[in-house]
Amino acid sequence: MKKITSVTNQTIKDILQLKDKAVRKERQEFLLEGQHLILEAFRKGLVLILLGTSEALKHGAIQKHLDEAKEVFEISPSVAEKLSDVVTSQSIFAVCAMKKPAIDLDHNILLLDQLQDPGNLGTLIRSAASFNFKTIIASPNTIGFYNSKVLRSTQGNFFQVNLINEYLMKTINDLKNEDYIILGTSLHQHAKTLEKVKFDDKEKYALILGNENKGISPELLDMIDININVEMNDQVESLNAAIAGSIIMHKIYVEGE
Amino acid sequence: MKKITSVTNQTIKDILQLKDKAVRKERQEFLLEGQHLILEAFRKGLVLILLGTSEALKHGAIQKHLDEAKEVFEISPSVAEKLSDVVTSQSIFAVCAMKKPAIDLDHNILLLDQLQDPGNLGTLIRSAASFNFKTIIASPNTIGFYNSKVLRSTQGNFFQVNLINEYLMKTINDLKNEDYIILGTSLHQHAKTLEKVKFDDKEKYALILGNENKGISPELLDMIDININVEMNDQVESLNAAIAGSIIMHKIYVEGE
Repeated sequence: MKKITSVTNQTIKDILQLKDKAVRKERQEFLLEGQHLILEAFRKGLVLILLGTSEALKHGAIQKHLDEAKEVFEISPSVAEKLSDVVTSQSIFAVCAMKKPAIDLDHNILLLDQLQDPGNLGTLIRSAASFNFKTIIASPNTIGFYNSKVLRSTQGNFFQVNLINEYLMKTINDLKNEDYIILGTSLHQHAKTLEKVKFDDKEKYALILGNENKGISPELLDMIDININVEMNDQVESLNAAIAGSIIMHKIYVEGE
Repeated sequence: MKKITSVTNQTIKDILQLKDKAVRKERQEFLLEGQHLILEAFRKGLVLILLGTSEALKHGAIQKHLDEAKEVFEISPSVAEKLSDVVTSQSIFAVCAMKKPAIDLDHNILLLDQLQDPGNLGTLIRSAASFNFKTIIASPNTIGFYNSKVLRSTQGNFFQVNLINEYLMKTINDLKNEDYIILGTSLHQHAKTLEKVKFDDKEKYALILGNENKGISPELLDMIDININVEMNDQVESLNAAIAGSIIMHKIYVEGE
Protein backbone atom coordinates (compact mmCIF):
# COMPACT_ATOMS: atom_id res chain seq x y z
CA MET A 1 0.00 0.00 0.00
CA LYS A 2 1.31 3.46 -0.87
CA LYS A 3 2.11 5.70 2.07
CA ILE A 4 1.85 9.49 2.30
CA THR A 5 3.57 11.23 5.18
CA SER A 6 3.87 14.80 3.89
CA VAL A 7 1.08 17.37 3.77
CA THR A 8 2.74 18.87 0.69
CA ASN A 9 2.34 15.62 -1.29
CA GLN A 10 0.65 16.42 -4.62
CA THR A 11 -2.22 13.93 -4.09
CA ILE A 12 -3.00 15.55 -0.72
CA LYS A 13 -2.78 19.04 -2.25
CA ASP A 14 -5.25 17.98 -4.96
CA ILE A 15 -7.61 16.51 -2.37
CA LEU A 16 -7.46 19.62 -0.15
CA GLN A 17 -8.71 21.64 -3.12
CA LEU A 18 -11.99 19.70 -2.84
CA LYS A 19 -12.83 21.87 0.18
CA ASP A 20 -13.67 24.52 -2.45
CA LYS A 21 -17.21 24.22 -3.88
CA ALA A 22 -16.13 25.35 -7.38
CA VAL A 23 -13.44 22.66 -7.54
CA ARG A 24 -15.91 19.99 -6.41
CA LYS A 25 -18.29 21.05 -9.13
CA GLU A 26 -15.62 21.06 -11.83
CA ARG A 27 -14.19 17.66 -10.92
CA GLN A 28 -17.55 16.14 -9.88
CA GLU A 29 -15.81 14.74 -6.81
CA PHE A 30 -16.09 15.41 -3.09
CA LEU A 31 -14.26 14.54 0.13
CA LEU A 32 -15.89 12.43 2.85
CA GLU A 33 -14.66 12.06 6.41
CA GLY A 34 -15.65 9.43 8.97
CA GLN A 35 -16.40 5.75 8.84
CA HIS A 36 -20.20 5.90 8.85
CA LEU A 37 -20.47 8.06 5.72
CA ILE A 38 -17.61 6.26 3.94
CA LEU A 39 -19.28 2.86 4.43
CA GLU A 40 -22.46 4.32 2.89
CA ALA A 41 -20.42 5.62 -0.04
CA PHE A 42 -18.88 2.16 -0.55
CA ARG A 43 -22.36 0.62 -0.65
CA LYS A 44 -23.28 3.13 -3.36
CA GLY A 45 -20.06 2.36 -5.28
CA LEU A 46 -18.89 5.97 -5.15
CA VAL A 47 -15.44 5.69 -3.50
CA LEU A 48 -12.52 6.57 -5.77
CA ILE A 49 -9.67 7.08 -3.29
CA LEU A 50 -9.58 5.83 0.30
CA LEU A 51 -7.10 7.38 2.78
CA GLY A 52 -6.58 6.46 6.41
CA THR A 53 -4.01 6.11 9.12
CA SER A 54 -2.70 2.54 9.50
CA GLU A 55 -4.97 2.09 12.51
CA ALA A 56 -8.07 3.47 10.75
CA LEU A 57 -7.55 1.23 7.72
CA LYS A 58 -7.38 -1.86 9.97
CA HIS A 59 -10.98 -1.44 11.10
CA GLY A 60 -12.99 -4.55 10.14
CA ALA A 61 -15.85 -2.74 8.40
CA ILE A 62 -13.40 -0.74 6.27
CA GLN A 63 -11.19 -3.79 5.54
CA LYS A 64 -14.11 -5.53 3.80
CA HIS A 65 -14.30 -2.75 1.20
CA LEU A 66 -10.58 -2.09 0.58
CA ASP A 67 -10.69 -3.81 -2.83
CA GLU A 68 -13.52 -1.58 -4.02
CA ALA A 69 -11.59 1.70 -3.89
CA LYS A 70 -9.64 2.54 -7.03
CA GLU A 71 -6.70 3.69 -4.87
CA VAL A 72 -5.85 3.28 -1.18
CA PHE A 73 -3.28 5.36 0.70
CA GLU A 74 -1.98 4.96 4.22
CA ILE A 75 -1.49 8.45 5.61
CA SER A 76 0.42 9.74 8.62
CA PRO A 77 -1.45 11.32 11.57
CA SER A 78 -0.22 14.78 10.48
CA VAL A 79 -1.72 14.30 6.99
CA ALA A 80 -4.97 13.07 8.59
CA GLU A 81 -5.04 16.18 10.76
CA LYS A 82 -4.58 18.37 7.68
CA LEU A 83 -7.47 16.69 5.84
CA SER A 84 -9.81 16.68 8.83
CA ASP A 85 -12.56 19.19 9.53
CA VAL A 86 -13.40 18.01 13.03
CA VAL A 87 -11.78 18.14 16.45
CA THR A 88 -11.88 14.40 17.10
CA SER A 89 -11.15 12.82 13.74
CA GLN A 90 -11.57 9.12 12.92
CA SER A 91 -8.61 9.62 10.52
CA ILE A 92 -10.41 7.97 7.59
CA PHE A 93 -11.22 9.85 4.36
CA ALA A 94 -12.55 9.11 0.90
CA VAL A 95 -12.61 11.00 -2.37
CA CYS A 96 -15.96 10.09 -3.94
CA ALA A 97 -17.63 10.59 -7.30
CA MET A 98 -20.74 12.74 -7.34
CA LYS A 99 -23.58 10.67 -8.69
CA LYS A 100 -26.05 12.32 -11.06
CA PRO A 101 -29.38 11.46 -9.47
CA ALA A 102 -32.76 11.56 -11.16
CA ILE A 103 -35.85 13.13 -9.59
CA ASP A 104 -38.03 10.43 -8.01
CA LEU A 105 -41.45 11.41 -9.38
CA ASP A 106 -43.28 8.74 -7.38
CA HIS A 107 -42.60 10.41 -4.04
CA ASN A 108 -42.89 13.77 -2.31
CA ILE A 109 -40.13 16.30 -2.98
CA LEU A 110 -38.44 19.00 -0.89
CA LEU A 111 -37.47 22.26 -2.65
CA LEU A 112 -34.89 24.56 -1.02
CA ASP A 113 -34.73 28.20 -2.03
CA GLN A 114 -31.40 29.79 -1.02
CA LEU A 115 -31.03 27.98 2.30
CA GLN A 116 -27.67 29.06 3.78
CA ASP A 117 -27.00 27.21 7.02
CA PRO A 118 -25.08 23.91 6.59
CA GLY A 119 -26.52 22.44 9.80
CA ASN A 120 -30.06 23.16 8.58
CA LEU A 121 -29.38 21.56 5.20
CA GLY A 122 -27.82 18.43 6.74
CA THR A 123 -30.68 18.07 9.21
CA LEU A 124 -33.25 18.50 6.41
CA ILE A 125 -31.56 15.75 4.35
CA ARG A 126 -31.85 13.47 7.41
CA SER A 127 -35.51 14.44 7.94
CA ALA A 128 -36.33 14.03 4.22
CA ALA A 129 -34.85 10.51 4.34
CA SER A 130 -36.90 9.79 7.49
CA PHE A 131 -40.19 11.00 6.02
CA ASN A 132 -39.90 9.50 2.50
CA PHE A 133 -39.12 12.73 0.67
CA LYS A 134 -36.80 10.92 -1.75
CA THR A 135 -35.57 13.98 -3.67
CA ILE A 136 -34.31 17.40 -2.61
CA ILE A 137 -33.96 20.05 -5.31
CA ALA A 138 -32.04 23.15 -4.23
CA SER A 139 -31.68 26.46 -6.06
CA PRO A 140 -28.12 27.01 -7.34
CA ASN A 141 -27.48 29.66 -4.65
CA THR A 142 -28.34 27.29 -1.81
CA ILE A 143 -25.34 26.15 0.26
CA GLY A 144 -23.61 23.18 -1.40
CA PHE A 145 -24.75 19.65 -0.59
CA TYR A 146 -21.12 18.47 -0.39
CA ASN A 147 -20.04 21.03 2.25
CA SER A 148 -18.31 19.08 5.06
CA LYS A 149 -20.64 20.39 7.77
CA VAL A 150 -23.68 19.44 5.68
CA LEU A 151 -22.29 15.91 5.25
CA ARG A 152 -21.70 15.57 9.01
CA SER A 153 -25.16 16.89 9.95
CA THR A 154 -26.87 14.19 7.86
CA GLN A 155 -25.52 11.62 10.37
CA GLY A 156 -24.87 9.06 7.65
CA ASN A 157 -28.12 9.58 5.72
CA PHE A 158 -26.57 11.62 2.91
CA PHE A 159 -26.90 8.89 0.29
CA GLN A 160 -30.54 8.10 0.96
CA VAL A 161 -31.89 11.16 -0.83
CA ASN A 162 -31.49 12.28 -4.47
CA LEU A 163 -29.79 15.67 -4.22
CA ILE A 164 -30.15 17.97 -7.22
CA ASN A 165 -29.34 21.62 -8.00
CA GLU A 166 -31.76 23.28 -10.40
CA TYR A 167 -33.53 26.61 -10.89
CA LEU A 168 -36.72 26.39 -8.87
CA MET A 169 -38.91 28.35 -11.30
CA LYS A 170 -38.29 25.73 -13.99
CA THR A 171 -38.51 22.87 -11.47
CA ILE A 172 -41.86 23.99 -10.07
CA ASN A 173 -43.33 24.32 -13.58
CA ASP A 174 -42.15 20.79 -14.37
CA LEU A 175 -43.57 19.44 -11.10
CA LYS A 176 -46.93 21.10 -11.73
CA ASN A 177 -47.06 19.28 -15.07
CA GLU A 178 -46.49 16.07 -13.08
CA ASP A 179 -49.50 16.96 -10.89
CA TYR A 180 -47.53 17.85 -7.78
CA ILE A 181 -49.27 20.14 -5.29
CA ILE A 182 -46.85 22.96 -4.40
CA LEU A 183 -46.68 23.79 -0.68
CA GLY A 184 -45.02 26.87 0.77
CA THR A 185 -44.38 28.42 4.16
CA SER A 186 -44.75 32.08 3.25
CA LEU A 187 -46.86 34.16 5.60
CA HIS A 188 -47.51 36.86 3.01
CA GLN A 189 -50.43 35.16 1.31
CA HIS A 190 -53.53 33.48 2.66
CA ALA A 191 -51.81 30.87 4.80
CA LYS A 192 -53.66 27.93 6.35
CA THR A 193 -52.61 26.60 9.74
CA LEU A 194 -50.98 23.19 9.46
CA GLU A 195 -53.70 21.51 11.52
CA LYS A 196 -56.32 22.59 8.92
CA VAL A 197 -54.38 21.16 5.95
CA LYS A 198 -55.26 17.50 5.34
CA PHE A 199 -52.81 15.54 3.22
CA ASP A 200 -53.99 12.79 0.91
CA ASP A 201 -52.01 9.65 0.09
CA LYS A 202 -53.27 9.85 -3.50
CA GLU A 203 -51.58 13.23 -4.03
CA LYS A 204 -47.93 14.13 -4.51
CA TYR A 205 -46.48 17.13 -2.67
CA ALA A 206 -43.51 19.42 -3.27
CA LEU A 207 -42.68 21.58 -0.23
CA ILE A 208 -40.68 24.82 -0.69
CA LEU A 209 -38.56 26.11 2.20
CA GLY A 210 -37.02 29.57 1.86
CA ASN A 211 -33.89 31.33 3.01
CA GLU A 212 -33.41 31.59 6.82
CA ASN A 213 -33.78 35.40 6.76
CA LYS A 214 -35.57 36.39 3.56
CA GLY A 215 -37.95 33.44 3.19
CA ILE A 216 -39.16 32.27 -0.24
CA SER A 217 -38.20 34.37 -3.29
CA PRO A 218 -40.98 36.72 -4.46
CA GLU A 219 -41.04 35.24 -7.97
CA LEU A 220 -41.91 31.78 -6.57
CA LEU A 221 -44.73 32.92 -4.27
CA ASP A 222 -47.39 32.95 -7.00
CA MET A 223 -46.60 29.35 -7.90
CA ILE A 224 -47.56 28.05 -4.42
CA ASP A 225 -50.86 26.13 -4.22
CA ILE A 226 -51.13 26.02 -0.42
CA ASN A 227 -49.26 28.23 2.02
CA ILE A 228 -48.85 26.58 5.40
CA ASN A 229 -48.52 28.34 8.72
CA VAL A 230 -47.02 26.12 11.43
CA GLU A 231 -48.80 26.99 14.68
CA MET A 232 -46.67 28.86 17.24
CA ASN A 233 -47.04 31.74 19.67
CA ASP A 234 -46.47 35.27 18.41
CA GLN A 235 -43.64 36.16 20.79
CA VAL A 236 -41.17 34.37 18.55
CA GLU A 237 -40.55 35.75 15.07
CA SER A 238 -40.20 32.43 13.28
CA LEU A 239 -39.25 28.80 13.64
CA ASN A 240 -35.90 27.47 12.47
CA ALA A 241 -36.26 26.45 8.79
CA ALA A 242 -35.26 22.82 9.41
CA ILE A 243 -37.76 22.59 12.29
CA ALA A 244 -40.68 24.07 10.32
CA GLY A 245 -39.88 21.92 7.28
CA SER A 246 -39.57 18.74 9.34
CA ILE A 247 -42.85 19.35 11.19
CA ILE A 248 -44.65 19.67 7.83
CA MET A 249 -42.87 16.67 6.26
CA HIS A 250 -43.72 14.57 9.33
CA LYS A 251 -47.45 15.39 9.02
CA ILE A 252 -47.39 14.56 5.30
CA TYR A 253 -45.63 11.27 6.13
CA VAL A 254 -48.28 10.34 8.73
CA GLU A 255 -51.35 11.38 6.69
CA GLY A 256 -50.29 11.29 3.10
CA GLU A 257 -48.20 8.15 2.70
CA MET B 1 -16.38 57.22 27.29
CA LYS B 2 -13.40 54.99 28.12
CA LYS B 3 -11.55 53.55 25.15
CA ILE B 4 -9.74 50.23 24.88
CA THR B 5 -7.40 49.68 21.96
CA SER B 6 -5.23 46.83 23.23
CA VAL B 7 -6.18 43.17 23.33
CA THR B 8 -3.95 42.78 26.40
CA ASN B 9 -5.98 45.31 28.41
CA GLN B 10 -6.95 43.73 31.76
CA THR B 11 -10.71 44.28 31.27
CA ILE B 12 -10.53 42.50 27.91
CA LYS B 13 -8.47 39.67 29.39
CA ASP B 14 -11.07 39.24 32.14
CA ILE B 15 -13.88 39.21 29.59
CA LEU B 16 -12.14 36.67 27.34
CA GLN B 17 -12.06 34.29 30.31
CA LEU B 18 -15.87 34.18 30.08
CA LYS B 19 -15.46 31.90 27.04
CA ASP B 20 -14.73 29.20 29.64
CA LYS B 21 -17.84 27.56 31.13
CA ALA B 22 -16.26 27.16 34.60
CA VAL B 23 -15.45 30.88 34.76
CA ARG B 24 -18.98 31.80 33.67
CA LYS B 25 -20.39 29.62 36.42
CA GLU B 26 -18.08 31.05 39.08
CA ARG B 27 -18.72 34.69 38.17
CA GLN B 28 -22.37 34.17 37.20
CA GLU B 29 -21.70 36.30 34.13
CA PHE B 30 -21.64 35.58 30.38
CA LEU B 31 -20.61 37.30 27.17
CA LEU B 32 -23.16 38.20 24.49
CA GLU B 33 -22.36 39.21 20.92
CA GLY B 34 -24.66 40.86 18.41
CA GLN B 35 -27.26 43.59 18.58
CA HIS B 36 -30.39 41.42 18.61
CA LEU B 37 -29.41 39.44 21.72
CA ILE B 38 -27.94 42.49 23.48
CA LEU B 39 -31.17 44.47 23.05
CA GLU B 40 -33.05 41.52 24.57
CA ALA B 41 -30.59 41.51 27.48
CA PHE B 42 -31.14 45.27 28.03
CA ARG B 43 -34.91 44.68 28.16
CA LYS B 44 -34.30 42.07 30.89
CA GLY B 45 -31.97 44.45 32.79
CA LEU B 46 -29.04 42.04 32.59
CA VAL B 47 -26.31 44.13 30.91
CA LEU B 48 -23.34 44.95 33.13
CA ILE B 49 -20.68 46.05 30.62
CA LEU B 50 -21.31 47.18 27.04
CA LEU B 51 -18.44 47.19 24.53
CA GLY B 52 -18.56 48.27 20.90
CA THR B 53 -16.61 49.95 18.16
CA SER B 54 -17.44 53.65 17.81
CA GLU B 55 -19.62 52.81 14.81
CA ALA B 56 -21.47 49.98 16.58
CA LEU B 57 -22.20 52.15 19.64
CA LYS B 58 -23.74 54.85 17.42
CA HIS B 59 -26.58 52.56 16.32
CA GLY B 60 -29.93 54.10 17.34
CA ALA B 61 -31.33 51.03 19.09
CA ILE B 62 -28.17 50.66 21.17
CA GLN B 63 -27.93 54.42 21.91
CA LYS B 64 -31.31 54.31 23.70
CA HIS B 65 -29.94 51.86 26.26
CA LEU B 66 -26.44 53.30 26.85
CA ASP B 67 -27.40 54.69 30.28
CA GLU B 68 -28.59 51.29 31.47
CA ALA B 69 -25.20 49.57 31.27
CA LYS B 70 -23.04 49.89 34.41
CA GLU B 71 -19.97 50.52 32.20
CA VAL B 72 -19.53 51.32 28.49
CA PHE B 73 -16.27 50.95 26.57
CA GLU B 74 -15.45 52.00 23.05
CA ILE B 75 -13.17 49.33 21.62
CA SER B 76 -10.90 49.26 18.57
CA PRO B 77 -11.68 46.94 15.63
CA SER B 78 -8.78 44.68 16.67
CA VAL B 79 -10.24 44.27 20.18
CA ALA B 80 -13.67 43.57 18.63
CA GLU B 81 -12.11 40.90 16.44
CA LYS B 82 -10.48 39.30 19.48
CA LEU B 83 -13.79 39.16 21.38
CA SER B 84 -15.82 37.92 18.42
CA ASP B 85 -16.79 34.31 17.73
CA VAL B 86 -18.21 34.88 14.25
CA VAL B 87 -16.81 35.64 10.81
CA THR B 88 -18.92 38.74 10.19
CA SER B 89 -19.10 40.46 13.55
CA GLN B 90 -21.43 43.35 14.42
CA SER B 91 -18.64 44.53 16.79
CA ILE B 92 -20.98 44.93 19.75
CA PHE B 93 -20.61 42.89 22.96
CA ALA B 94 -22.09 42.81 26.45
CA VAL B 95 -21.08 41.17 29.68
CA CYS B 96 -24.37 40.13 31.29
CA ALA B 97 -25.45 38.82 34.67
CA MET B 98 -26.94 35.33 34.72
CA LYS B 99 -30.42 35.54 36.12
CA LYS B 100 -31.59 32.85 38.49
CA PRO B 101 -34.87 31.80 36.96
CA ALA B 102 -37.63 29.89 38.68
CA ILE B 103 -39.43 26.90 37.17
CA ASP B 104 -42.75 28.00 35.65
CA LEU B 105 -45.07 25.33 37.06
CA ASP B 106 -48.07 26.60 35.11
CA HIS B 107 -46.66 25.54 31.74
CA ASN B 108 -45.14 22.56 30.00
CA ILE B 109 -41.44 21.91 30.60
CA LEU B 110 -38.60 20.54 28.47
CA LEU B 111 -36.00 18.33 30.19
CA LEU B 112 -32.62 17.76 28.51
CA ASP B 113 -30.51 14.78 29.49
CA GLN B 114 -26.87 15.22 28.41
CA LEU B 115 -27.58 16.95 25.09
CA GLN B 116 -24.19 17.85 23.57
CA ASP B 117 -24.69 19.77 20.30
CA PRO B 118 -24.85 23.57 20.75
CA GLY B 119 -26.92 24.02 17.55
CA ASN B 120 -29.49 21.52 18.83
CA LEU B 121 -29.71 23.25 22.21
CA GLY B 122 -30.09 26.73 20.65
CA THR B 123 -32.76 25.47 18.25
CA LEU B 124 -34.63 23.73 21.09
CA ILE B 125 -34.64 26.96 23.13
CA ARG B 126 -36.17 28.73 20.09
CA SER B 127 -38.75 25.94 19.61
CA ALA B 128 -39.58 25.85 23.33
CA ALA B 129 -40.22 29.61 23.23
CA SER B 130 -42.41 29.10 20.12
CA PHE B 131 -44.50 26.32 21.63
CA ASN B 132 -45.00 27.75 25.17
CA PHE B 133 -42.57 25.46 26.95
CA LYS B 134 -41.53 28.24 29.33
CA THR B 135 -38.83 26.33 31.23
CA ILE B 136 -35.94 24.11 30.14
CA ILE B 137 -34.18 22.07 32.81
CA ALA B 138 -30.91 20.49 31.67
CA SER B 139 -28.81 17.91 33.48
CA PRO B 140 -25.48 19.37 34.70
CA ASN B 141 -23.57 17.46 31.99
CA THR B 142 -25.63 19.00 29.16
CA ILE B 143 -23.75 21.56 27.04
CA GLY B 144 -23.84 24.99 28.72
CA PHE B 145 -26.72 27.36 27.93
CA TYR B 146 -24.29 30.29 27.70
CA ASN B 147 -22.06 28.73 25.02
CA SER B 148 -21.70 31.31 22.22
CA LYS B 149 -23.01 28.93 19.52
CA VAL B 150 -26.05 28.10 21.65
CA LEU B 151 -26.74 31.82 22.09
CA ARG B 152 -26.51 32.42 18.31
CA SER B 153 -28.72 29.45 17.42
CA THR B 154 -31.57 30.81 19.54
CA GLN B 155 -31.88 33.68 17.04
CA GLY B 156 -32.62 36.19 19.78
CA ASN B 157 -35.06 34.02 21.75
CA PHE B 158 -32.62 33.15 24.51
CA PHE B 159 -34.32 35.28 27.16
CA GLN B 160 -37.84 33.97 26.56
CA VAL B 161 -37.30 30.67 28.35
CA ASN B 162 -36.29 29.96 31.98
CA LEU B 163 -33.04 28.01 31.68
CA ILE B 164 -32.05 25.88 34.66
CA ASN B 165 -29.39 23.25 35.42
CA GLU B 166 -30.49 20.56 37.85
CA TYR B 167 -30.19 16.80 38.34
CA LEU B 168 -33.04 15.25 36.37
CA MET B 169 -33.80 12.44 38.83
CA LYS B 170 -34.63 14.99 41.52
CA THR B 171 -36.39 17.26 39.02
CA ILE B 172 -38.63 14.51 37.68
CA ASN B 173 -39.64 13.46 41.20
CA ASP B 174 -40.52 17.07 42.00
CA LEU B 175 -42.50 17.43 38.77
CA LYS B 176 -44.43 14.22 39.44
CA ASN B 177 -45.45 15.70 42.79
CA GLU B 178 -46.73 18.71 40.83
CA ASP B 179 -48.84 16.33 38.68
CA TYR B 180 -46.75 16.63 35.53
CA ILE B 181 -47.02 13.76 33.04
CA ILE B 182 -43.48 12.69 32.10
CA LEU B 183 -42.97 12.07 28.36
CA GLY B 184 -39.92 10.38 26.86
CA THR B 185 -38.63 9.37 23.46
CA SER B 186 -36.95 6.09 24.36
CA LEU B 187 -37.68 3.19 22.04
CA HIS B 188 -36.71 0.58 24.62
CA GLN B 189 -40.03 0.47 26.38
CA HIS B 190 -43.58 0.20 25.09
CA ALA B 191 -43.59 3.32 22.93
CA LYS B 192 -46.77 4.80 21.43
CA THR B 193 -46.65 6.45 18.03
CA LEU B 194 -47.10 10.21 18.31
CA GLU B 195 -50.36 10.14 16.31
CA LYS B 196 -51.93 7.87 18.96
CA VAL B 197 -51.00 10.12 21.90
CA LYS B 198 -53.69 12.74 22.54
CA PHE B 199 -52.65 15.72 24.62
CA ASP B 200 -55.07 17.41 26.99
CA ASP B 201 -55.07 21.12 27.77
CA LYS B 202 -55.96 20.29 31.41
CA GLU B 203 -52.72 18.34 31.86
CA LYS B 204 -49.13 19.54 32.28
CA TYR B 205 -46.36 17.77 30.41
CA ALA B 206 -42.60 17.47 30.92
CA LEU B 207 -40.80 16.07 27.86
CA ILE B 208 -37.36 14.43 28.28
CA LEU B 209 -34.93 14.47 25.34
CA GLY B 210 -31.78 12.39 25.62
CA ASN B 211 -28.21 12.57 24.40
CA GLU B 212 -27.74 12.60 20.61
CA ASN B 213 -26.01 9.21 20.65
CA LYS B 214 -26.92 7.42 23.86
CA GLY B 215 -30.50 8.62 24.28
CA ILE B 216 -32.08 8.97 27.74
CA SER B 217 -30.08 7.73 30.76
CA PRO B 218 -31.15 4.25 31.95
CA GLU B 219 -31.92 5.46 35.47
CA LEU B 220 -34.54 7.91 34.13
CA LEU B 221 -36.36 5.43 31.87
CA ASP B 222 -38.54 3.97 34.64
CA MET B 223 -39.78 7.45 35.54
CA ILE B 224 -41.35 8.02 32.10
CA ASP B 225 -45.16 7.85 31.97
CA ILE B 226 -45.53 7.78 28.16
CA ASN B 227 -42.79 6.91 25.68
CA ILE B 228 -43.41 8.52 22.30
CA ASN B 229 -42.24 7.19 18.97
CA VAL B 230 -42.23 9.88 16.25
CA GLU B 231 -43.33 8.18 13.03
CA MET B 232 -40.56 7.72 10.43
CA ASN B 233 -39.38 5.07 8.01
CA ASP B 234 -36.98 2.41 9.25
CA GLN B 235 -34.16 3.17 6.80
CA VAL B 236 -33.01 6.03 9.02
CA GLU B 237 -31.67 5.21 12.46
CA SER B 238 -33.14 8.21 14.27
CA LEU B 239 -34.29 11.79 13.92
CA ASN B 240 -32.15 14.73 15.02
CA ALA B 241 -32.93 15.40 18.72
CA ALA B 242 -34.06 19.00 18.08
CA ILE B 243 -36.35 17.84 15.26
CA ALA B 244 -37.97 15.02 17.27
CA GLY B 245 -38.38 17.28 20.31
CA SER B 246 -39.88 20.11 18.25
CA ILE B 247 -42.36 17.82 16.46
CA ILE B 248 -43.64 16.59 19.84
CA MET B 249 -43.72 20.09 21.41
CA HIS B 250 -45.63 21.39 18.36
CA LYS B 251 -48.33 18.69 18.73
CA ILE B 252 -48.65 19.44 22.45
CA TYR B 253 -48.96 23.16 21.62
CA VAL B 254 -51.73 22.51 19.06
CA GLU B 255 -53.73 19.99 21.14
CA GLY B 256 -52.79 20.65 24.73
CA GLU B 257 -52.72 24.42 25.11
